[in-house]
Amino acid sequence: MRRIAILGSTGSIGTQALEVIAANPQLFELFAITGHSNVSLLAQQARQFKPNMVIITDDSKYLELKESISDLDDVKVFAGIQSVCDMVAMSSVDMVLTSMVGYAGLQPTIAAVKAGKTIALANKETLVVAGELICSLAAQYKSAILPVDSEHSAIFQCLAGEQDKSIEKLLLTASGGPFRTFSLEQLAHVTKADALKHPNWDMGAKITIDSASMMNKGFEVIEAKWLFGVQKEQIEVVVHPQSIVHSMVQFTDGSVKAQLGMPDMRLPIQYAFGYPNRLPNAYDRVDFTQIGTLTFEKPDTNRFRNLAFAYDAMAKGGNLPCILNAANEVVVKAFLHDKIGFLQMSDVIEWAMQTLPFIQAPTYQDYVETDAHVRRMVEEKIQ
Amino acid sequence: MRRIAILGSTGSIGTQALEVIAANPQLFELFAITGHSNVSLLAQQARQFKPNMVIITDDSKYLELKESISDLDDVKVFAGIQSVCDMVAMSSVDMVLTSMVGYAGLQPTIAAVKAGKTIALANKETLVVAGELICSLAAQYKSAILPVDSEHSAIFQCLAGEQDKSIEKLLLTASGGPFRTFSLEQLAHVTKADALKHPNWDMGAKITIDSASMMNKGFEVIEAKWLFGVQKEQIEVVVHPQSIVHSMVQFTDGSVKAQLGMPDMRLPIQYAFGYPNRLPNAYDRVDFTQIGTLTFEKPDTNRFRNLAFAYDAMAKGGNLPCILNAANEVVVKAFLHDKIGFLQMSDVIEWAMQTLPFIQAPTYQDYVETDAHVRRMVEEKIQ
Repeated sequence: MRRIAILGSTGSIGTQALEVIAANPQLFELFAITGHSNVSLLAQQARQFKPNMVIITDDSKYLELKESISDLDDVKVFAGIQSVCDMVAMSSVDMVLTSMVGYAGLQPTIAAVKAGKTIALANKETLVVAGELICSLAAQYKSAILPVDSEHSAIFQCLAGEQDKSIEKLLLTASGGPFRTFSLEQLAHVTKADALKHPNWDMGAKITIDSASMMNKGFEVIEAKWLFGVQKEQIEVVVHPQSIVHSMVQFTDGSVKAQLGMPDMRLPIQYAFGYPNRLPNAYDRVDFTQIGTLTFEKPDTNRFRNLAFAYDAMAKGGNLPCILNAANEVVVKAFLHDKIGFLQMSDVIEWAMQTLPFIQAPTYQDYVETDAHVRRMVEEKIQ
Repeated sequence: MRRIAILGSTGSIGTQALEVIAANPQLFELFAITGHSNVSLLAQQARQFKPNMVIITDDSKYLELKESISDLDDVKVFAGIQSVCDMVAMSSVDMVLTSMVGYAGLQPTIAAVKAGKTIALANKETLVVAGELICSLAAQYKSAILPVDSEHSAIFQCLAGEQDKSIEKLLLTASGGPFRTFSLEQLAHVTKADALKHPNWDMGAKITIDSASMMNKGFEVIEAKWLFGVQKEQIEVVVHPQSIVHSMVQFTDGSVKAQLGMPDMRLPIQYAFGYPNRLPNAYDRVDFTQIGTLTFEKPDTNRFRNLAFAYDAMAKGGNLPCILNAANEVVVKAFLHDKIGFLQMSDVIEWAMQTLPFIQAPTYQDYVETDAHVRRMVEEKIQ
């Protein structure tokens, strides 16, 4: 029985993770769930799964949550990010799914890593911002990090039974998003509504915009560097609009392994939860002769500049990925509030990367300060 | 240092295997080569590699071979199939590559299995004819069988780090051959010259015809059953004309793993020789954005009946696969001598499967007798 804590249980990954746990009660026990502010969904999940703990990070919602599940005697209710950090370190927790959105995932992820927990990592910003720190802590505290992003899960699956030194290149596939074929002129006029209609996945608003702008793929490139210990030149993004090939690994003998499947986040979640065992399920199977055609094309970094920024941030390292991420969080929020246009997001990110002070070997405190600094500067810039 | 014996060194697989050995002198030592009758090539290979032994199975060519390399003092020359069986059992041999063509591979393969050698299996007819016997002997004598066929090597690579019980389905890809899009009317007029122009691989005449008629794919289906311990319903053939996806495995969680690469037999040969290590090389890499499109379609067993015969032989078992193989060897030879037409090959195979006596649990002697019986009957039928 694997005891799991889900950080961000009210989001898209979190709710699908609960489905996986519900479907495998003989294997998984839900120890704790956490959410930022969605009281009603947290309460409903607590009622269904009866975890030992429920934590709401927005302190102001604590009483509302506490009262709404006051009849559940065995479910303890806490509030605040520190409660999350304390909870993940408890001996009752075997595995922590980090599925909160954005930079907020960093602190509790570090706490879980330092407690030597197995991390099912869905909060890619953690590795984008502080990959070097997280990876060295993971090695020090013997914390295993299992990827949940479908692309990294694909690579992880392809690497089963292979030696790390056999990796020649990672081929990260990208759907290309809903604007793959748009001209710059068309991109300039993309609205929030257009961007939120991403065809392949049922995702949250932030990651949907990141997918449309290819910032998400840029983050995944940086994430891949840290998860698999490869260099910039060893990561290639391939646009694959059907989203059937989830990613590939090319080995030093020229052989390529790919992991494929229908787009369904439950599969990588389940793979991480059950690792190294595969758990039978009745999810849709790929029907190759029905699908018929899989296509591959080069990404266009003239139209999707964020991807180039990510490669640049990865190559230069230091606090640059942190700047990239913080600037992106602010511009996406601004875009979702109709304050800036689609292409302006990249302009502002570029400005932030050129303007903010570069720190070659940041400490945790440097990350925290860089993040705050970037947010302040970018918010001012956008006003 | 792995000491390798190559059975059938003068064929397409054999010569490519020698390239692999020549490229990795620090890893592999060529202990012995065998060929049927190509004296000049055997002599040339002996001169280049200086193996301990050279064996020619056609006894009548022994003196010619012996004389042509009489100056090579350290290379011993033998003749006949029994010499091959004795050689593979020698303690100096670590691995045996079985790359002879057709039924002739059975006896030496059994000898190598009984000696507990690691087999790099390229002679698929061995498993087609006597899969049950070979597999039970391999278990008994702890002989590992590593596939060299590109499809089975692909599956084997996809299974690295996975548990056998996780296999839901094998997806064997097939190029579909040069006549994939031909109507029955067009197939009826296919000539030997048409068939020998197979686009994707540089192969021998027998396997080129088998590929064009999809008998080769049928054999691979049966081979897959034995290599991977799956049932008829768990093997699906998918036509994939680009021959980039070499085969796939679908697991019980719905995840699919594929192995891909440029069509180059040196890769699966090298993978078997170096297993479990991958050996760096400079073979062509797949350029996905250059290739652009991969397609998949269902095979048509109305036009390519051999595939259905193979499934039928596999399901009924006994000596039926042996009948299928022997009848096919005779009809292919007849087709190559312009004695029968392309579609007639299937007619005669069907007739043989319906006519020859069925033996449910054949012994080795039964296989030998069935094989001889089928050849006699089919040759008479064709006259």
